[in-house]
Amino acid sequence: MKRFHPSINRIGLSGIVKISQRARELKLEYEKRTGQPFIFFQRGELDLQMPEYVKQALKDSLDIKIRTNYPKSGGEDILKDAIISYHGELGTTLSKDNVSVTYGGQGGLQISLSLFRGSKGLSFNPCWSPILQSIGPYTETDFDFVDLYEKDGKMIFNENELEQKLRGVDVFYFNNPHNPTGKVFSMEEVERIDFLCRKHDVFLLSDEPYRDIVFDGKKHFSVADLKNPDAVTSFTFSKSFAATGLRIGYVVSKDPKIIEAISRVDYTQTAGVHTPTQYAFAEALSNKPEREKWLNSCKEEFQARRDIMYNTLSPILGNTPKPEGAFYFFPDLRKFFPYSTNVDEEMLELLLINGVAIVPGSEFGKGNEGRARLSYSGTNRELTRIGSERFLGFLNRKI
Amino acid sequence: MKRFHPSINRIGLSGIVKISQRARELKLEYEKRTGQPFIFFQRGELDLQMPEYVKQALKDSLDIKIRTNYPKSGGEDILKDAIISYHGELGTTLSKDNVSVTYGGQGGLQISLSLFRGSKGLSFNPCWSPILQSIGPYTETDFDFVDLYEKDGKMIFNENELEQKLRGVDVFYFNNPHNPTGKVFSMEEVERIDFLCRKHDVFLLSDEPYRDIVFDGKKHFSVADLKNPDAVTSFTFSKSFAATGLRIGYVVSKDPKIIEAISRVDYTQTAGVHTPTQYAFAEALSNKPEREKWLNSCKEEFQARRDIMYNTLSPILGNTPKPEGAFYFFPDLRKFFPYSTNVDEEMLELLLINGVAIVPGSEFGKGNEGRARLSYSGTNRELTRIGSERFLGFLNRKI
Repeated sequence: MKRFHPSINRIGLSGIVKISQRARELKLEYEKRTGQPFIFFQRGELDLQMPEYVKQALKDSLDIKIRTNYPKSGGEDILKDAIISYHGELGTTLSKDNVSVTYGGQGGLQISLSLFRGSKGLSFNPCWSPILQSIGPYTETDFDFVDLYEKDGKMIFNENELEQKLRGVDVFYFNNPHNPTGKVFSMEEVERIDFLCRKHDVFLLSDEPYRDIVFDGKKHFSVADLKNPDAVTSFTFSKSFAATGLRIGYVVSKDPKIIEAISRVDYTQTAGVHTPTQYAFAEALSNKPEREKWLNSCKEEFQARRDIMYNTLSPILGNTPKPEGAFYFFPDLRKFFPYSTNVDEEMLELLLINGVAIVPGSEFGKGNEGRARLSYSGTNRELTRIGSERFLGFLNRKI
Repeated sequence: MKRFHPSINRIGLSGIVKISQRARELKLEYEKRTGQPFIFFQRGELDLQMPEYVKQALKDSLDIKIRTNYPKSGGEDILKDAIISYHGELGTTLSKDNVSVTYGGQGGLQISLSLFRGSKGLSFNPCWSPILQSIGPYTETDFDFVDLYEKDGKMIFNENELEQKLRGVDVFYFNNPHNPTGKVFSMEEVERIDFLCRKHDVFLLSDEPYRDIVFDGKKHFSVADLKNPDAVTSFTFSKSFAATGLRIGYVVSKDPKIIEAISRVDYTQTAGVHTPTQYAFAEALSNKPEREKWLNSCKEEFQARRDIMYNTLSPILGNTPKPEGAFYFFPDLRKFFPYSTNVDEEMLELLLINGVAIVPGSEFGKGNEGRARLSYSGTNRELTRIGSERFLGFLNRKI
């Protein structure tokens, strides 16, 4: 048989999937032995249920409206109108040729990078793992990195380093709110990143799946709100509406040529996005009272979980940055493993045996060994409390 | 801005979309002028409604089963099991690592060709237009063609020509039942094609979206039923279950490495196929009494339409091959345009003015000018009769 194209062989499997499998294997044994629940802090999946009014809209799109025919390339008008109107509320004017509906955030990101296949890319490190492991290799984007690092309880970056590295690349992949650190970039930071990308003619790809999950009354500041003439911002309904399995999101760009190209590639790959789901999410956005009630309750829930986890663990972790959004915590645990030669492996295995699954830092790029991503997306407050206290106990025994 | 990768610029827009737009524009004027319905023979969309039991299963997967979480890479077990069991009924033994769920037939074909990006391809001519216009260019597959031609009222091909051309290529794209001719390849033909692909180490990609729509009691013979060690066969639920907008299908291969690679690419592109829809189509296949009732009624309906169209038009068309499956008729109309310098353009425009939309032959590759694809997928028997008689009247006036 003919050999696969090299880009195919380079696509890696996510380590998170393997960790989840191993966690499921250990769960029963752990729970039988201890009588305590195994805690799944490794996943990005939500335990919340998709809101009833969106479910109902999806059912109506099958029954009453009968929207089971081929979708329109780039997205159904009703969903585009709802997106435009929603961004209008947020203060940004868009038209239909600024929006393309995609298969979740992932679809938008993969297609955007495919437009510039074979590019040199830049991203902050740590970085959302599918960019490193699958989307980057598949689109043959060769990534370099700029470190996000801790200083005075904040995650920051060196602007000079960013500018220097932007000189040599085609694409900057930006993720805000940031997975895995939970950092929400300030307006000043977003504007600075945008300015530097424009200055050095770098295509800015902004990945904003957690825009609705921002804490402490902070405002998310989106690249879609800026004047960048060709940036693409990728959004998804997966996290905001607890609809990860419904695979729907969209991209926004000021440049209709980019939107048209993304729509064409999406159509080539899939013949467009699941029609009835598009009608359901038009309703998800358009029904403002239900939408606001839902999004506020989500934000409140995740903030409560963030508080439980952070308040439990911060005393032992010192000046670790407090997550400002998304549903991840990414503490540095190296001081608890002073003699380890393979800290990520050791940490992961010890924690699994102790009934807590996490994702070790190395999944998010080089230099992150000894950190762990703890996600509270799938653990209610009680489980978040149990898991955080168990994690604390584990760290205490390591001192 | 950085320029798009050349593969992006080469993706064409389907001419069929433009024809449909123009038809919608002319419809009102025509209907007002004549009091007769405009006939849409150009589309591959169905007028049938998705069966109630599948709709119900989709609603249950939201409500009762709550399957709104991330899909499993490659497909949910329940759908893979249903597919395996269905192919078992058809006489072929598969296991889970022989099946990957995809976004319709299109997803399976695009991913399969992406595995071998940059290949030399071969296909029969005429050819399903997205292969020519979008999937081929996007995957950088450089296609050559072997003619299907009319002889004694049948569509046939020259085996020597096929073998000669297979020597120089990596991939053979095979579509059966065939769009646009409606040819159903016989067991002998399929076995011969398979034999020649294996002999010359050519990857056989078989596109079988219409396997359930085969007439006159004929049996569809699938590449999935053969022993080819690495062929991929792509199936979709779009046509069989009138579910074009639900974007679900699957591929089958004897080679688990190919299936694993397809699953990895699908996951990279979209993070997997819409979870609740997978549960719905598990039920679509598993509920044998409902499934058989539905598929038989579809087949009967399309055969009746085929008969109306063929019996109305064949007297004036001479020995034109009778469609054996799918829902297309692809007659040669050159004799009605003896002096035309641009037969496809002229035919299309004249027919549109006369209240019939068709797709001209050139959409399906070079050498097909002066043919027209008439689809009866979206016209009930009465509309098929009206459209066929109007088409006949048009041809009569051209003599």
